[in-house]
Formats: sequence, structure tokens, C-alpha cells
Amino acid sequence: MEGIGGYAGRYLEVDLTTGKHRVRDTPRAWMRDYVGGTGFAARYLWDHLTPGIDPLGPENVIFFGTGPVTGTLGHATGRLVVASKAPLTGIWGESHVGGQLAPEIKYAGYDFIAITGRAERPVYLWIDDDHVEIRDASHMWGKTTRETFKLIWEDVGDDSVQSAVIGPAGERLVRFANVMVDFYDAAGRTGMGAVMGSKNLKAVAVRGSRGIKVANFEEFYEVIQRIYAKATTGEWREIANDTIRGYGTPYLIDVMYSIGRLPTKNHWTGVFPEAEKINGEALKAVRISHKSCFSCFLQCKYVHHVDSGRFACTLTGGPEYEALVSLGTNVMISDLGAIIHANNLCNEYGMDVITAGKIISWLMEVYERGLVTEEDIGGLRPKWGDVDLVIDLLHKMARREGIGDLLAEGALRAARKIGKGTERYVIHVKGLEASAQDGRSHKSIGLAHAVNVRGADHLRGLCTYDELPWAVKYAYERFGEEEAKRMVIDDRLDPTGKGYLTWLTENFYSIVDSMITCKYGAMWPMIYYYDDFAPWLKALTGIEELGSERRLALAGERIYMLRRAFNAREGVGKEADTLNPRFTEEPMPEGPGKGQVVELEVMLREYYEYRGLDWETGWPKRSKLEQLGLTDVAEELASLGRLGE
Amino acid sequence: MEGIGGYAGRYLEVDLTTGKHRVRDTPRAWMRDYVGGTGFAARYLWDHLTPGIDPLGPENVIFFGTGPVTGTLGHATGRLVVASKAPLTGIWGESHVGGQLAPEIKYAGYDFIAITGRAERPVYLWIDDDHVEIRDASHMWGKTTRETFKLIWEDVGDDSVQSAVIGPAGERLVRFANVMVDFYDAAGRTGMGAVMGSKNLKAVAVRGSRGIKVANFEEFYEVIQRIYAKATTGEWREIANDTIRGYGTPYLIDVMYSIGRLPTKNHWTGVFPEAEKINGEALKAVRISHKSCFSCFLQCKYVHHVDSGRFACTLTGGPEYEALVSLGTNVMISDLGAIIHANNLCNEYGMDVITAGKIISWLMEVYERGLVTEEDIGGLRPKWGDVDLVIDLLHKMARREGIGDLLAEGALRAARKIGKGTERYVIHVKGLEASAQDGRSHKSIGLAHAVNVRGADHLRGLCTYDELPWAVKYAYERFGEEEAKRMVIDDRLDPTGKGYLTWLTENFYSIVDSMITCKYGAMWPMIYYYDDFAPWLKALTGIEELGSERRLALAGERIYMLRRAFNAREGVGKEADTLNPRFTEEPMPEGPGKGQVVELEVMLREYYEYRGLDWETGWPKRSKLEQLGLTDVAEELASLGRLGE
Repeated sequence: MEGIGGYAGRYLEVDLTTGKHRVRDTPRAWMRDYVGGTGFAARYLWDHLTPGIDPLGPENVIFFGTGPVTGTLGHATGRLVVASKAPLTGIWGESHVGGQLAPEIKYAGYDFIAITGRAERPVYLWIDDDHVEIRDASHMWGKTTRETFKLIWEDVGDDSVQSAVIGPAGERLVRFANVMVDFYDAAGRTGMGAVMGSKNLKAVAVRGSRGIKVANFEEFYEVIQRIYAKATTGEWREIANDTIRGYGTPYLIDVMYSIGRLPTKNHWTGVFPEAEKINGEALKAVRISHKSCFSCFLQCKYVHHVDSGRFACTLTGGPEYEALVSLGTNVMISDLGAIIHANNLCNEYGMDVITAGKIISWLMEVYERGLVTEEDIGGLRPKWGDVDLVIDLLHKMARREGIGDLLAEGALRAARKIGKGTERYVIHVKGLEASAQDGRSHKSIGLAHAVNVRGADHLRGLCTYDELPWAVKYAYERFGEEEAKRMVIDDRLDPTGKGYLTWLTENFYSIVDSMITCKYGAMWPMIYYYDDFAPWLKALTGIEELGSERRLALAGERIYMLRRAFNAREGVGKEADTLNPRFTEEPMPEGPGKGQVVELEVMLREYYEYRGLDWETGWPKRSKLEQLGLTDVAEELASLGRLGE
Repeated sequence: MEGIGGYAGRYLEVDLTTGKHRVRDTPRAWMRDYVGGTGFAARYLWDHLTPGIDPLGPENVIFFGTGPVTGTLGHATGRLVVASKAPLTGIWGESHVGGQLAPEIKYAGYDFIAITGRAERPVYLWIDDDHVEIRDASHMWGKTTRETFKLIWEDVGDDSVQSAVIGPAGERLVRFANVMVDFYDAAGRTGMGAVMGSKNLKAVAVRGSRGIKVANFEEFYEVIQRIYAKATTGEWREIANDTIRGYGTPYLIDVMYSIGRLPTKNHWTGVFPEAEKINGEALKAVRISHKSCFSCFLQCKYVHHVDSGRFACTLTGGPEYEALVSLGTNVMISDLGAIIHANNLCNEYGMDVITAGKIISWLMEVYERGLVTEEDIGGLRPKWGDVDLVIDLLHKMARREGIGDLLAEGALRAARKIGKGTERYVIHVKGLEASAQDGRSHKSIGLAHAVNVRGADHLRGLCTYDELPWAVKYAYERFGEEEAKRMVIDDRLDPTGKGYLTWLTENFYSIVDSMITCKYGAMWPMIYYYDDFAPWLKALTGIEELGSERRLALAGERIYMLRRAFNAREGVGKEADTLNPRFTEEPMPEGPGKGQVVELEVMLREYYEYRGLDWETGWPKRSKLEQLGLTDVAEELASLGRLGE
């Protein structure tokens, strides 16, 4: 791999069924065409998975990936992608997480680790540079995530070792089980923890001691300094310091309240009257320490400890904004101690806080509406704001006890089992319960949820509602100033131009997720864009193609489209690019978004055009795939009758 | 200050009585002769204090000092010295602490801050580079140290600001009140917090944004890399990783138990049978996070949280080894939750854990011996291992309630007030309660306690009981191989050569405390010595004289001797270089040191010879002072009749 910086140049494949592993060279063409991270995951899983397999079967692969910037100097170079065919949705599954593990994988000499098969009994994977060992994890089985991190340290005799672990929820194949790293950071969504559980894989523990080559250090250092300066001076200084570093994601509670986009009562409204009881300022009172992911210029993480009251003694990282909604506003709870406690249960059991909370809010609504009775749901009488119920259900879901066994399948599967019209109130897309946004008060996120390749989630295509500098630049060139302004200045309540903007954003985030770096930096505050990424990657890797903004944007489109193709290959097309009628038919009842619905079709038409999807079927078009160099993908889809024309 | 690296080149003087401040140039001769840190403190306080003043009067000065390495790349460059005439002992007072404050002072542009006078009402000092402001602290008065850190952040609107604060104990002039930084790190000894309290000074808060010049960066970087390599490879790697970073100072519980030097039952014995209930391994079970001082290669700090039992919900940094003894073994408590809780009370009230605990063990012994009755001590019936009593007394001392008001004066003053032969059981030197060593099982530390300029404490002259590489080197040259080995290989139970070794160690530690860096690095593991310090300081500062090992060792001797002279000027001489009869007359009752006493006189004679002290009086000799360039000091002592010949 002479001459290439950033990459380890090798990856690790492990088969838990045979107990064998092998190390292979990372193809240089992948670096050029898929960058790393999510891009590598998409290519690898496309190549290695057979459509139709059971996500919880041994044939599935769990992929732990780094990108070229991982472990090097620069902002947020500690992010990890965990990808697989998702147990919760049956389609493309991926979840990103910060912490400190990804650099360790790179330092151990691997761009990514792909694990398939199934161990006969509980094991964990121990990687110490070239030493790769499948070790017994019987004594860890049943342990909480926190206990597991510590047991690994004891087992290998080194508490600097970084791990990805699952908790009891993952072991029990809860379909929204997460993967935890660094004690409190979760790769939360789509059930990656259940894939590990299905393989009897309790953890992946890594220690690395290798350096990373930089192709041109002086240029590289200059780019990093420029990005650092943007984060620490000028217009972003205050936002970086006071808002992001000052409060972490909970600052969003006030912001979302102010624009009427704070999901409340199972997404019925966007206004939670008691928001200030659970906002960033309220959390400061129980804050005990600051935490940072590897090499982060922003450092948004906090640890909290409840000192008094019923939940006294609870100590955990977070809650993040999403948990404050899913376990707070959306179930009408304003007791911060209760939310922190519930968040901790999710962390310890290893469950996604978003899906777990959204299942409960769904249950509250269908019970309130009289669609189900006590008898249908294990004797429960769910009421809004019922703290005891939330705590009880989290335990039950994680342990698959009683009604929890059904709920552990996710809200959509549970609703289909129960019937009685309850599915209408599952707020999801493609089986993934919606994250804490509402397209009625912010149209573009309505579209972003509907088309996201992993389901209803903001992290693949959320446009901020101010202007996006890089989007402005591209749109100006393409449409001229007047039209561009109309299209890319995200007027929250106007659906115009949002198809284009979401397409552009999805492509951009595909690069962020492949480098891999953090959306805090790419989204808000906007401290780096393509015009930083290109020279950054060029200086780091020495690969000419990565130094071109245009080629990078094209790679982003390729990486996104390949994941769309993955879903098409699984048979999921246009029918899944939709939203719950709550957003498209029920006008927002109050607040700044009052009276609004999501005009999905108009945005979807524009989006399909830019993305290159067939309007009738949603299948990727041959012309677009070929333009992106994905001819082999087009052929495979064609053979399945899932190629658009 | 052209051409000088490392130093800010300026210092700040504040007079709280007048509310005025001024900035002055740091004399270049001080850099050459006193290095920084403790050296500057000694010179400044010698020059500015009048002998005989009340430590709690407005004339006293509280000194916050950095050294040349502070805030630069290198091991443990975040240490701060706090110095003053000590309220607890009436002699030289100083205490060092890590955390993150010292670099901030340097970045703000000051080598040190010297504060005198007394504010009319509670204030705190706010330093933001050149902006120096005395701000109202009425709303902070009465608050715990933790609350105070947070109130400062709110007050200045920036939670990256670093502070030194006092708690309620300092406000109430408890003579062993400490100064806390970075939430859990204490400048614990000799009552520096009471000096702040006497000045109505609740805190010093600092934000700095300046860089630090390095005279020769390439040389500097090479030295730092060499030191880093020593800490992370070879013989010290395991100790640095597994022991110091793995357990922090609590690793010492097992070590001291194994050599019979673990103070138990008011220093009666050196063996605590239940040691393993409170050792580093036991603490791991309640460990919740790792913490580090600024730029530390070792990172020995941990935060603990008691999850269950009577003291559930207690969360605090530490306990360190010293607290495990003072609040554990020495009062016969093996309940780890209770010790953590007691440690937290000391942190929150801002009290030295060592003195606080040693007062209680003294009270337990004199009550057990029947020297005092319930009536003499406020109705208490102190018994060994009485957790309730310890907790109760910590509250009472900090609040000066009931008997606590007397105990807040320290054990020696309390014993003298009570009389009845109780003074015999105060384990102290010069009024400072002994830290967690016992000279009977380790002879050199007996001498180190007896002669320490701040009283019975290990941190100015503790020789480790293996060989000290730098000491070996010097001794070989001086005495030849055979004699040197006898003198500097610290055979624990042999007093031979310990006068020389302690003198050598005190001089060396004077440099460590002036640079300022940490004894974890200089003591064990021994990752740097004079032969690292000299090139390090030379490359950093460009000052030729600091680049000579010999001159540096001489500066160490000068800095030590000036503090000895400070005590002489206050009238404290040979009579104070002593130990409690517990160590010199009561043989160790059990364990590896069984039957041993400290042969103090033989060691003291040798020490006096090397230190240059008059055997009859303990006053510094003129010849030695002149050899060290302290002629003016000799003149002043001569005028007071306190100069040795």
C-alpha cells in the first residue's frame, strides 16, 4: 500500500462458525470510489450478502468500519460505523457512534472488520494488532454493558482497551438492541446489537499500536489548522463553545420548542409545554462531568448523576436530545430524574432509546384511543406521563418478559400482531420508529425521513433550516442566484426545492459518514464542507481523485445510491418512501407550525428526479447507476426485475 | 524578556485591602537561581513577609505559582504551588496540586499571582489575560467547593474557566482548610484554604489565551519524546500502565501492607488486617471514570460512585492513598463506602483529609487511654472504627460546631488546650499531622518527616526503598562504589547513609517542585532525573545555567535552604526536627518492621552535616548560605541571632 496515507490498507474477516479469520488488502479502487466508512460498508455488504437472508441468521455480516481520517489529527476522527442487514427493518442497517474505538481498530492495522457466522457459545473477539483471538465470553453473558466493558478489561488485563459490546437486550435478540462503546456511546439504531447477539458475539475488543501514514504532512496540518480555526474563532466560536460544548445535544430542546418541532404525545404535536424542565439548562444541575469523543473540537458529551428523589443515585452518560424526546416529551414525562433513569436502563441493557421510547408512546396512544384493552397488552393500562409504566416496560422489553417479548420485535411487528387498527399509530418509516423531528414544522425533514435508506431518521439527510453554505455554492452554479436562493435557503414551511436540497444533503452526509467524521461540524456549526474535505483527503491519502470536490460529491452520490440499491435488491421500493398520515393528513395542532402538513408528493417527485429513481417503482434507474459507475449493481437489479428505466 | 522560553516573564500582585493590582516583570536572576514554582514562592515570601505576622492576618500573602514547564508539552506540566505562612503550623506553608489551573495562569501571562490584604466582603479574583477584576462572591459564600466551581462558571459565562476555590471550612478559618481545583484535586496541607478565607477570598478564577515561547523547539521536542518513551516502554511501561494508571495511588495500600508501613490505629502499628477491603482492587468495583491532570503521561486519578448501602449515591474524586489511611486504616475503618463518603465531605467542605483524619485518630486514642472523658470532648465516646463518629466530626470541624470548633485548630492546638497528657499522642512534626508513612518500617522516611520544612510529610524528602538512579550516580562520584552502595541503596531498616540520601532527595524534589512537575515520574516510576531536567529546561528556556545538572542540583539545595531559613526566621530550629516517641521509643509491634524504632539522632547528625545546619540550634550555617549565594539571607538571620556558625 505504498504511498497511501490515512488507510491501514488491510481489513479483517472473521467467521465465527469456523473460528477462522483472514486479513485481506483493502482495494485501492474502493478508496477512490467509496472513500471508507459507510462507503466501504455499502460495497462490502452488497458484495457479500445474499438478498432475502435472515438478519439474525449466521449468513448475515456485522461490519465495523473506520474511514481514512480515523485516528488522525482533525475534528471528530473517532467515529465508527456499524453496518449489517437490519433485524428491525429487514433492509440496509447502519448506525454510527463516537467514543474511542474506531482509532484503535485503525491503529491495530485494519480499515474494517467484517464478522460472519455464529459461534457455538458466547464469545468475544480480541484483536491486539496482528493477534486475533475468539475468546470465551460465558462469564460476560447476561451482564450489562457497563459490567461487560469492565470484564473485558479484567480479561485482557489492560483498561486502555476499547470495545464494542452488547447488553442483555442484544443477547435476547431484541430487534432494536444497540452496540455500546466507551461506556455511554451508542450505535443505537436498526438493531445492530441483535445481529451481534445472534452470532453469540458479546463484544469486539481492540488494542492497536501502529501509526498511520500521512501522505503530505505539511498540507495536511494546514488544512486541520484551518478547520480548527473555524471551530474556535469567528462566527462559529460562540456556537461551538456556548451551545454545543456548553450543553451538548440537549440545547436542541429549546430550539425545537421555539420552532414547534419538538415531538410530543406520540408525534401528535410539536409543542411540549414543560420543555424548560428538561432542557440543557435543567440538565446542568445534575451534570457531573464532561466527556469527549476522540479528537473532537466540539466535545458535546456529558455525564449526569441524579442526587435526590426517587431516582437518586442514577449515573449515566446522556441523555442526548433524542432520549429527552423519546423518553420525555413524546411520552409526556417532564421528570428529568425519571428520563435519566430510563436512559440509563437503555444504556445498561443495550437498547436503542429512540425505538424503545417510541414503542411506548405508540402503546399509550392506542390504549387511549380504545383500540386495545388491558387484556390485549398484558394487563397494562398505559397513560401519558406514567413514569412507572415506562420503567417497567423498558425492563420487560430488554428481558422479553410478558408483553415485553412482543414489544421487543419493534412497534410495527407488534402492531401487526395485535391488529385492531393499531398500525395506523406506529410513527415509523420502513419499520424504523421516527426520530425526534416533525416534517410539518420543517418540511425538508419530512422528506428526509420518508426516503432515508435506513428508515425514519434524520442523520442521513437532515437539512438545517438556515442556509447551507456548500449547498448554496452548488445551487448557484446550477440554477443561478435567484432560483438557487429559493431552493436551498431552507424556509422551514415551504416544500419548494426540498427534493434537490435533500438529495444534495444525503450525498454530502454520505461523505461525512465515509471519511468518517461527525455531523456536528458538517451540519451545525458548519465548520467544514467539501472544500475542506477535498484538500484534507488529498493531503492525508495522496489519492488525487479524493482531492476533487466534484469527484467527492459524486462519490457521495454513489455511496448513497448503493445503499438504496441494497434495499431495492431486498424488494423495498417506492411504497416504503412514505410517512405516517399523522404528518401528511393531520395538520399540526398548535405552535409555530400550526395548520401545516407535509406536502410529501411534491418533494418526493423532485427528489426522485435528482436521485435517479423510477417514479412508479422507486427502483434505481440504469442511467443513474451507470453514471455512478455502478454497472454491476444495475445488472444485478435488472436480473431481479428491480431496475428502473 | 526576549529570548526566554517557558516563562510568562511577568507576575501579578493583588492587594485585596486597596483593591489594586499591578503587573511586574519576573526577575531573570530568579529564573536562573530559583527556577520557578516553589523556588519563586520561597524567594517571594522571604522578601515580602515580616517574621511573626499572623498567618490569618491581612499582611500574609497567598502565592499561586507556576514553573517554566507549566502549560508546555511534557509530563505533568499542570501542577500548581500554593504557598503562604501556614495557619496550621506558623511556619513555611506550601501545598501542590495538579488539575488544569496552573497552565491557565501561564496562558493568561503570569508566572505567579501573589495576593495580600483582606477584602471587606466575600470576593473572588477573576483574571482573563490582562483583565484583572475583584468580583463579588457573596452568593458563593457558604457554598461547597463543587457548587462554587459551578457558580464561577455561571458568573463568568464560560465553563472552560479554571479556578482555585475554598469551601465552608476555609471560610470559617479551619486551620487545615484546603484549596480545591478542578473539582476533586486538593492543595491539601498546611491550611492554605484558611489563608484565603482570612482574606475573604472565595476563589481565584483564570482564563488565559496566550501562547508560551519555546527557546529551541527541536531540542525541546526531542527531550520530551525521550521522557515519553521512558514512560511508555521498557522497564517502566508496566508500572506506568498497570500500577499507576491502573489503580492510582491506592495501589500503595498493598505495597505498604507488604512492608508493614501502613499506618493503623493512630500510627500505633503498620499492619491493617483488612487492607484488602480498601485496596486498589476493591476500589475498582465502584470506579466510574478516569481523570487526568494537564498533560500527564501517567494519569493516576479516578472518580468513584458508591452504588449501594448506607453511603449510596456518594460521588467524588479519590480517595487517594492518604485518605484511605487517614479516614480508613488509621481510624480502623474498612468500609469503603464510608471512606469515600468521608473523603467527599472533606472535598466539599474544603478540608485536608490527612489532618482531619489524624485529629480523629488522636481523639480515639486519648479516649481509649482514658486521658479524656466524655465531658472533656463534647459528650463524644470515640471508638476505633466508629463510622458515625468520623462522619459527625468531619461535619462539626468544618462547621466549627461544638467540639469541632476546638478540633478545627488542628490536633496540636487542641491537645494543648485540653492538656491531660493528650499531646503525647498527637502524631505530628512542627504542628503538621503526619502523613501515611512510618519511619520504623522505613528508616529514611522517619528522618524525612522530622526535618521536612512544612512538617510531618513525605512529599519533600521521601526516598523510595529501591535504589534511586540519580542518587546512585551522584554518590558513586562522591564516595566511590562500595561506600555509595551502602549509602544510597535504601535498605529500609538500616539508618546508614539516610542523612545524605534525604538531603539529596530534598534538593532533587525542590527542583521537581520548582519546574513544576510531578513526583509520579520523579519518584516512582523514575522516568526523569536531573539528566533529563537540565536539557529539558535548557531547550525550553534557553537559559544556559538551567542546562547544567550541577547548577540545577545546587539550585535545589538553595531553594530548600531558603525555606529552612524561613522557618529559622520564625524562630523554629532544631527542637522542631523531631518525631513523636511512638516512632523513636515504641518498637513496631508486628509485621515486617516488628521490633524497629527510628534511630533519629544518627540520621539527623548526618543530615545536619550535609544540609549545613548548626547541630546545637538547627540554624542554617553562614558558610552554607554563602555557598548557595544566600548572603542576604545569612545577614537577616544573623541580625535575629538565628545564624549557625
